Formats: sequence, structure tokens, C-alpha cells
Amino acid sequence: MSFSVIDWTAAGAIRFLDQTRLPTEEVYREVQSVETMVEAIQSLRVRGAPLIGIAAAMGLVAAARQRLHAGPLSLNWVEGAVEQLGQARPTAVNLRWALERMLRTAHEAFGRGETPAAVVDALRREADEIWREDAEMCRAIGNAGAALIPSGARVMTHCNAGALATGGIGTALGVIRVAHEEGKGILAIACEARPLNQGARLTAWELSQAGIPCRAIVDSAAAAMMGQGEVDLVIVGADRIAANGDVANKIGTYGLAIAARRHDLPFYVAAPRSTIDLATASGADIPIEMRPAAELATAPGVEVCNPAFDVTPAELVSAIVTDRGVVQPPYREGLSRLFD
Amino acid sequence: MSFSVIDWTAAGAIRFLDQTRLPTEEVYREVQSVETMVEAIQSLRVRGAPLIGIAAAMGLVAAARQRLHAGPLSLNWVEGAVEQLGQARPTAVNLRWALERMLRTAHEAFGRGETPAAVVDALRREADEIWREDAEMCRAIGNAGAALIPSGARVMTHCNAGALATGGIGTALGVIRVAHEEGKGILAIACEARPLNQGARLTAWELSQAGIPCRAIVDSAAAAMMGQGEVDLVIVGADRIAANGDVANKIGTYGLAIAARRHDLPFYVAAPRSTIDLATASGADIPIEMRPAAELATAPGVEVCNPAFDVTPAELVSAIVTDRGVVQPPYREGLSRLFD
Repeated sequence: MSFSVIDWTAAGAIRFLDQTRLPTEEVYREVQSVETMVEAIQSLRVRGAPLIGIAAAMGLVAAARQRLHAGPLSLNWVEGAVEQLGQARPTAVNLRWALERMLRTAHEAFGRGETPAAVVDALRREADEIWREDAEMCRAIGNAGAALIPSGARVMTHCNAGALATGGIGTALGVIRVAHEEGKGILAIACEARPLNQGARLTAWELSQAGIPCRAIVDSAAAAMMGQGEVDLVIVGADRIAANGDVANKIGTYGLAIAARRHDLPFYVAAPRSTIDLATASGADIPIEMRPAAELATAPGVEVCNPAFDVTPAELVSAIVTDRGVVQPPYREGLSRLFD
Repeated sequence: MSFSVIDWTAAGAIRFLDQTRLPTEEVYREVQSVETMVEAIQSLRVRGAPLIGIAAAMGLVAAARQRLHAGPLSLNWVEGAVEQLGQARPTAVNLRWALERMLRTAHEAFGRGETPAAVVDALRREADEIWREDAEMCRAIGNAGAALIPSGARVMTHCNAGALATGGIGTALGVIRVAHEEGKGILAIACEARPLNQGARLTAWELSQAGIPCRAIVDSAAAAMMGQGEVDLVIVGADRIAANGDVANKIGTYGLAIAARRHDLPFYVAAPRSTIDLATASGADIPIEMRPAAELATAPGVEVCNPAFDVTPAELVSAIVTDRGVVQPPYREGLSRLFD
């Protein structure tokens, strides 16, 4: 890839690609405080369920390193920072999953009586490990999922579940990428993903950077394209998968799943284990983030309802592609076995 | 209504509200040539199936009046103008329906040996009649359809099938308006209607002008709202209804109909008889306009597929509300009886 989604600077700050500016401009920003990382996540400069987990972990490290200069780095401070970062966005479970790992690392390091500088080093190793694991999981998802993709498939996807959303080649787009690398002659169909257009802006950009043929459509053209026989399957990422297989993902995913079912098309979800939340029984228990009204331009005084995500019931999901292989229904058993 | 969608000027030109500028600005434009009316229709400054029929008829009159000063007004000239106006957009049948009436009027007037000025007067009377009939049909549709709307209903609609799309109170929005006037406490839910946002821009503006409560959503939030029990029924307009009841309407209508069926919600189509095309056997025979790629912003070099309309099969349509009452399935018989 010719772009760097996120990285450390030599000074230990975080440098990330501001995704709100793509595809028009490639703007990189630096962050080294909890507040600015929270802002970056909330404003979707950094987005994608796996990536916000990685970014929060890295942001915690950068902020902790700054803290070394400003006052005592205590477990109490780390807990506060984790709390603040964890509340940046509610739906993706990866954020809290990554921060819990970081908090555990801090507990252990402080418990061993390490110096504040050594605690920061331990936190950085853990953040790097979360990142490295995510890249590995993406590749494993890509390999597992590509087996589901027939040669010549026209693969519809929604929003951006790619390199821009993860620490590696992506989840849904990782599958498309591996199928492309295998020479299958894939056409990706990117739904726009209103209101912030991550599909038309980010997925289309990322795929064109990778030389993968891509067609962009408005979200509401998806059903018509299926009806005209122009789609072979749908694959999307996820922000949280409940224990029963219900999937929270970008708003519009549910409508795609309903339309795919009507046209007897496979509807796949691709996600790493960090997205699977066995503590959440079903989709009804997943908190859905409401985004600001200002994201949708309308007439003055008109009420805007702007949920960022919806829940697709497990019965509409043909299979879930994970870094430990493809899980078929029934999901409750299959998903819990992933953690054995 | 506090706005004038279209009207004659004192000099016999056409003055219309440029709908591409709403809701930000109320800009009016004048037209008195075939070319500028074609441009206004193609660029969606004037839009909505019934309204483009009215606008084309009025534009023909204004251009014919100009022609009186420039050269001989012949039947041949009228035929050429009708041909040119009729090709402005392909999907809505109202355009050709209105122009055929105008052409018949010209044939008759020339056949009677009338002077060119008298021919123009006859054309103007016919255009006024088309307009007046459409306003009447809208009111009749509103009255017929309001009976289908329960008190307190949350009524989802797509794109704009209102006063901005017709010569009267609208079709789908006419139904909502009459139900509102009847004191039923309606909440309208306006889908954005990408890529040109006629729902969020025009429907929301028109309803707020009329004091009708309106909530705007992105198109892809529709299924999620249905799933959460926040929608009681869907009603949309149409650009063409085939003899078997298949409905061409704004892209996204088909997906709404599929989602409504999944949630057991009524899905109604409201349209005047001028939208019903018994000469078109089924939706497969309706030409679907492809709009320019530039309407959808994406990354450089990415292919855009941008159909303006889709076809909803009759089996997903609960009823068709016309100016001659509500037509229930089976549609072939019910629709043809409207023309007895």
C-alpha cells in the first residue's frame, strides 16, 4: 500500500491519515494526547472498528509518554485515560477490547513495580502487539474468505472495511483483495455509505490504489443492481457481532441483507475475533451511535434521525468469516468455539 | 403554498422555481425556448413526472409564441419541438403523454386552418388544461389516499412526489397533506434520495413550508427504522406504471418495497392516470435513465453506475392510489378499468 493509515513518529507521537479528507487530499495529522485522539475518533478522522481499537491503544501510549514529562504516571491516570478513550464511540466493541488489554498491561506493569518509563514501554509493546495481531487476522480473514468468492464475482460491499479501517489489508476488503490476488477477476461494487460516504470516498480510493476494479453506486441502487443480476454476493465488515450472530455494522447493512435474501445472494460478514462480543447476547443489546444532525443536509427546522449503525439479524447472514475460519450457522456455538 | 413552482409571465414566457437551488435559495428562472426548457428538465431544475409533462407543454407554448416573431409557425415546427422536448428524459411517461396532447391540439388547430397566433392560443389552453387537470388529480389522489392513512401514522416517503413535482398538492405528498389536513397527526419520514437529495432538500422543505412534521433520514436508514417499529407505512410517487402494475420510480424505491414487505408494512404508490402507461406491458419494458457519473463523488478513475430509477414489481405494491380511486391487485384489470 502506498499510504500509511497510522504509525508512530520518531518522537513517540501518533501520525495518522485524516480519512475525512480523502480522496481529495492525503493529509496526515499527529496526536499525542487523549483529548486529540478522542476527537480524531469521534470526528471519523480515524475510523473502522479494528482501527479505532488500534488507534486508541497507540494514543494511550503517546499520551502516557507525554505524561512522563508533565507529572506522575500512575495507574489511576491510565484508568482515567482508558475510560475517556473508551467513550469516544459506543458501537464498535474493538475499542473497548483493545483498551482492556492496555489496562491489563498497565495493571501488570505497575504490579511488578516497574518505573513509569518502563510502564510506557510495556504499553507500547502491547499496542504494537494489538496492531500486529490485527494485521495477521486481516490476512487470515482474507485467506479464509477468498475461498467463498467465485471467479469473476461481482462483490458488493458497504462503507469501508479495508486497509483504512484496520491494521492490515482489511476485513471485507481483505477478502476482496486476496480473491483479486488469486487472479479471480473480481469486480468490487462500493455502496456510497451515506451520510459520510466512506464507500464512495474511501473504499473506491483504496481499491483503485490497489488496482482492483471498482464500481461506485448510491446506497439505494443496491437492490436494483441485485434485481438486474449484476451482483453475485455481498460482503461487509462489522462493528460488533453479538453472541447469537447478530451483526452491528454501518447503517444500510440491514437493508442490503434483506435485499440479498430476496435475490438469493450470499451475504457474508468478515471480522476478526476482536469484533465478536460474546458478552452481548443479541443485536438488541448493542448500543447504536446516533450521529449529529448536521451530517445530513436538509431544510431548516427539519428533524434529522442519523443512526451510524444498524443491526442485521443472524438469520440473514450466510456465514461469518473470521481469522479462525468461516463460521456457519448456527452462530452461537460456532462463535463461542472461536475462543476455545 | 408560499411558492410558485411554475407559471406564465405576463409576456407569455415560463417562470419556474429552480429546484436545484432549494432549500438554500428560492431562485426563479425564465424560459421561452425549447432548448432552455430541455436543459431545465435534464438538469432537474424542473422535475417530478407530472410536472415535467406540464413544463414541457408550457415550454412548447412559450417557444411557439417566440416562433411567431421569428418565422413561420408550422405543424412541422411543432412536431420538431415536441420531438426535442419528448427526448429530454426517458423514464417518466407523463412527458410524452402531455406532449402527445399538445401535438394533437396543434394538428386540430392547423387542420381547422387557424392562424399561427390562434394555434398558439389553442396550445396555451391545452397546456393550462393539462396543468388544471393535474392539480385536480392531485387533490383526488390525496382524498382517495388519505383514507388509507391511520391516525398518528408515521409515513415514509422517498424522493419528492409533492407540490414541487406536480401541478397541485402532489401525489404521495398530496396524500400526506390531506391526511394532515384531516387532523390525523401525521409524521412524514423523508428519505434523502441520493444522489441529488430531492427528499432531504425538497420534500423536507415543502413539508416544513406546509407545517407538516417531517423527519429526514439517509436512504439506507429506512430498513433499520422499519425494523425498530418506527414506520407504519410507505407511500411513494411514480414515474411510470406499467400495465401489470410494475412501478418505475426514483432509485431506491425497490429497496424500500423489499424492506416494507419484510416488515409487513403497506407499500403504496400514488400517481395520476397520466403516469399509467397501458402500452408498456411490464417494468422490464420501461427505459431507465442513466444519470451522469459526476452526480456521485468518488475517487478519480472509479467507474460510477448511476441509474435514476428502479422498477418495483407489482407484487410488492399493496395498492395504487389514483385520481379515480384506490386500485387493488390484481393490477392489470384494475388499471385498465381506470381508462374506461
